[in-house]
Parts: sequence; C-alpha cells; structure tokens
Amino acid sequence: MKTYLDCIPCFLRQALAAARAATDDEQVHHRVLKLVAPRIVELPLEVTPPEIAQQVYRVVAEVTGNSDPYRKEKDRANQQALALYPQAKKIVAQSDDPLLSACKLAIAGNTIDLGPSSGYADIGGIVEQALVTPFGVNDYAGFRKSLSRCRHILYLGDNAGEIVLDKILIEELRRLKDISLDFVVREKPIINDATLADARYIGLDEVTNIVSSGSDAPAIVLAQCSPEVLRLYNTADVIIAKGQGNYESLSGERRNIFFLLRAKCQLVARQLGVNVGDAILKQARGLSPGRV
Amino acid sequence: MKTYLDCIPCFLRQALAAARAATDDEQVHHRVLKLVAPRIVELPLEVTPPEIAQQVYRVVAEVTGNSDPYRKEKDRANQQALALYPQAKKIVAQSDDPLLSACKLAIAGNTIDLGPSSGYADIGGIVEQALVTPFGVNDYAGFRKSLSRCRHILYLGDNAGEIVLDKILIEELRRLKDISLDFVVREKPIINDATLADARYIGLDEVTNIVSSGSDAPAIVLAQCSPEVLRLYNTADVIIAKGQGNYESLSGERRNIFFLLRAKCQLVARQLGVNVGDAILKQARGLSPGRV
Repeated sequence: MKTYLDCIPCFLRQALAAARAATDDEQVHHRVLKLVAPRIVELPLEVTPPEIAQQVYRVVAEVTGNSDPYRKEKDRANQQALALYPQAKKIVAQSDDPLLSACKLAIAGNTIDLGPSSGYADIGGIVEQALVTPFGVNDYAGFRKSLSRCRHILYLGDNAGEIVLDKILIEELRRLKDISLDFVVREKPIINDATLADARYIGLDEVTNIVSSGSDAPAIVLAQCSPEVLRLYNTADVIIAKGQGNYESLSGERRNIFFLLRAKCQLVARQLGVNVGDAILKQARGLSPGRV
Repeated sequence: MKTYLDCIPCFLRQALAAARAATDDEQVHHRVLKLVAPRIVELPLEVTPPEIAQQVYRVVAEVTGNSDPYRKEKDRANQQALALYPQAKKIVAQSDDPLLSACKLAIAGNTIDLGPSSGYADIGGIVEQALVTPFGVNDYAGFRKSLSRCRHILYLGDNAGEIVLDKILIEELRRLKDISLDFVVREKPIINDATLADARYIGLDEVTNIVSSGSDAPAIVLAQCSPEVLRLYNTADVIIAKGQGNYESLSGERRNIFFLLRAKCQLVARQLGVNVGDAILKQARGLSPGRV
C-alpha cells in the first residue's frame, strides 16, 4: 500500500507523541518536528507507510537519545495482557468454534497500538469486545481451508501485549494439528512493537520458535528482512500477518497471507471497504481460498 | 493563546484539505505540503494559531492559484443557514429568554467551520442542537449586566453561514435596547470565514454597519487591523468575539470581550476546561462581570 498525503500529518502527530514519551523537554519535541516535517514531505509516496514510520521513529530516537520511548507502555501492555490470559483461554476452550474465537481475540489484541491510534487500548476490555466487534472482512472459511493442508505457518507479529493473544491463537493452531510455526518479531524497538525481549517476557518462546525480522521497520518490509525470514516467507504454506503495518507493507503480495488486524485509520478502512475499528481477517488477493 | 506543537499536524491536515478543495491535482497537494511543512515547524510558538493559519492558507492560495478554495462551501452554508432563519427567529421569539436563545443559536452557528473541524457541520440540525448543547462556560449573567450600560458593541464575526445566526443575535440586541453596533468581517477570503460579500449576501448590512478587518488572518489579529477597527476595538463598551480563532488571538486581552464559540479542538477545550463541542459564552479574564 502506498502512502497517502493524509499520512503526513498523522506521522507528525506520531513523532510528537513519541518525542513526548521520550522526554519532557518541549524544545526537543519541537526539534523532532523540525527534522521530521521537511523530511517526510520530500519522500516519494510510493514508499509504504511503515517505511516512512521507520524513518520518523529513527529521528525521534536520534534527537531524544531514547531509542525505546514506549518501553513502559510495552511492559504495561504485556503485563495487562498476561493478566487476561486465563480468562481468554477459558473463552476459547468453551466456545463452539475455539479457532474462530482465538482469531477474534488475536485481532482484538491488535487494538494495542500506539502508532495510528492516538490513544491506548482499554486492554482490560479486550476480551469482551473481541467477541462483539463486527468483522469488516471475514475470510475465516478460507483460513480454515488453507490450514487443512498446511504444515508450516509463518506468523508475523505486531505489538507488545498483543502477542499474548497471538500466543493463544498459536496454542489453538497447535491443538488442531501438528504444524511447524515461526513467529517473527522486530529486530529493534519501534513504536510499541514486540521484540524478542517482549516475546520471551510473555512466554511466547514456550509455544513457538521466535525469529527476528532483521529490521527495525514497524512491519515486515521484505527488502529489509534477514535471509532467514525471507526463506521462511517464501516457503511457508500459510502466512499470518498481524496488524495494520504488515497489511500496509504486504497487501500487494501474492502469497497465501491472512491479514489479521483492526482497521485503525480512515485510509486503511476505506481501502478495505470497512469501518474504522472493524475486525479484519482477510486473505491476500489473487489467491483462491484453500490454495496452499 | 500561543500555538501548541499539536497545532502543527493539524495545520498540515488543514493545508491538505484546502488544497484538495482548490484543485484535484495530487501533485499540487503534495507541493503545498512540501512548502507548508518546513515553514510552520520553524515558526516560533509565540505566534498565535490564526497567524500561522494565515501563512498556511496563503501558501495554499499561491500554489493552487485559488485564493478562495471554500467559495462553494461558503455559498452553500450561507444558503442553508438562510433557510433556517425563519425557524430560528420563531424559536427566539417564543422562548422565555430570547436573548439567551439567540446567544445559543449564534454559538451553534460557530460549528460551521472548516478550519479546526475535519468535517462540515450539519447545518440543518443546528437549531435543534443549539438548544440542547451544554454550556462549558456560561458568563451570560455578566453579558446581560455588561449590556445594561452599553451603548456601542463591536461584533467580531467568524464564518460564512454562521453570520445568519449572528444576524439574529444582533436583531435581538437591537430589540432590547438602542445601541450602535459594528460588525467586523475578514478583508479577504480565508478558510470559510465571512467577508463583506458574505455579509451582504445574507443581508447582514440591513441590521448593522459592516467593517472589514483590514487583514486576511482568520481572526482579529490586532497588529494587522485597520486603524478604524482598532479605534472601534478600543472604544466599544462590549466586544462580542465569535469563534475559536478570535478566542485564540484575543484571549489574553484585557478588554470587555465576550467570546462566543464552540470548543473545536482538544487544546482549546483543555485551556477552557471544557469538552470538545461544548458551547462557550466566556467573558475575558481580568474583568469583573458588569464592568463596562
């Protein structure tokens, strides 16, 4: 997905929010905007939003001297989501279609995002709203079909906290069948995205192999990924791509990708033909459901 | 009121919206952002928001070649508000306190604003919501008291369409007592602000003298006003200042100003201690109610 001009004010807002999270010094906040604004307006619109975000947050890190401004928010999100784990597991276990419930929860977990959203999700309410939020796109039937002949899943993670709900979906996938699964995290901290440290903190390494993307972009930007991640990407039977960033960077790809996310801004919602806030379980275009 | 760093992304959003209203050429929209972004981040924050807006909209006019991008929206707002005039007049005439009702309507008219608001007001619903919208600040008692010994009012207008509701308030003021009143409009088109042409179009000149501010700023910026407006400003017994822009430019002034507006962004709402959307009838600080 290309960047829209509407993204430019949004990136400036994000830069300011991140600068404020990094330091209380208003002059530093202003300096961040002075560097980010002229830079992002000159970038070609063909660059995807996560690639622009990468540059924006690099400036924030350089100017503030804080390369992980949302560290506290990530810790809090991980802890709050962990506290929900028993309740969420119970709901999945007791539901008529545990895999569908686990998908809904993993999608609801994607509301824990400090990028396009201006505020933070009510993590305590995630389990309840997961079950009532309408699907804007629902390719669950295709997802089930793809899984039937699947041996290897590549799971592209997104945010801290959210990964606890991803863990539940992975446990459900493993309960259904014997599959190999690799989970990709960001190489370095960016926004509130999950890194290896977050994955280990919430015990994701107990249920899956964790791989670092090789990039600090807040999404899987293929040109920046490590050879290992590219190999996994090219050979996996099914790819689960979490979050708006991964949708933005991979929506044009012709692989068997299922995008699981909440639509968080008008532009992405419009492109998906849904309302902001809708749950999305979307199979990549150009692939018939069930092709593996 | 000084400019906050949060205003910078908002101004970029406004620049984009105005550029889109002026032309369909996306390259021109991008060029506007390329010029506006580096300029506004370098402006000192002591400059008030309307002064920054003035520069932003000048760039839009220069780059797009359209100095009145919201002309159609202004015409539509004037026409829609004129259609409401009979209903609004009736409500004022039949109410227990016609002056208060006229104030509420004039404040509701301030929702017709294409600057800080991202969308356009539902002009058809303005009369109904005028009567139910809560006051965030209500210095109506002070306003009545100030009027009791008032002979001359300076009324600082804001937007096209809105001026129809201002006309009703002016008619009500004139019904109450014999006062002289001057109504100030913008010198040139900016955003959807009312100019002399708009005032004449809706017949405001039938009930008051109209004066042009001498400036194309989207608010009364005293340093830019004509000597005539300054003289009126310095000698009026009561000043009615409509809209968020006039609040931003004049909130620090120690004159007997009553600000009538809707709080349209988080920053102004926070400064006023109200919620976004609240109706505001606020007397300038440092003046006890009734001082004339």
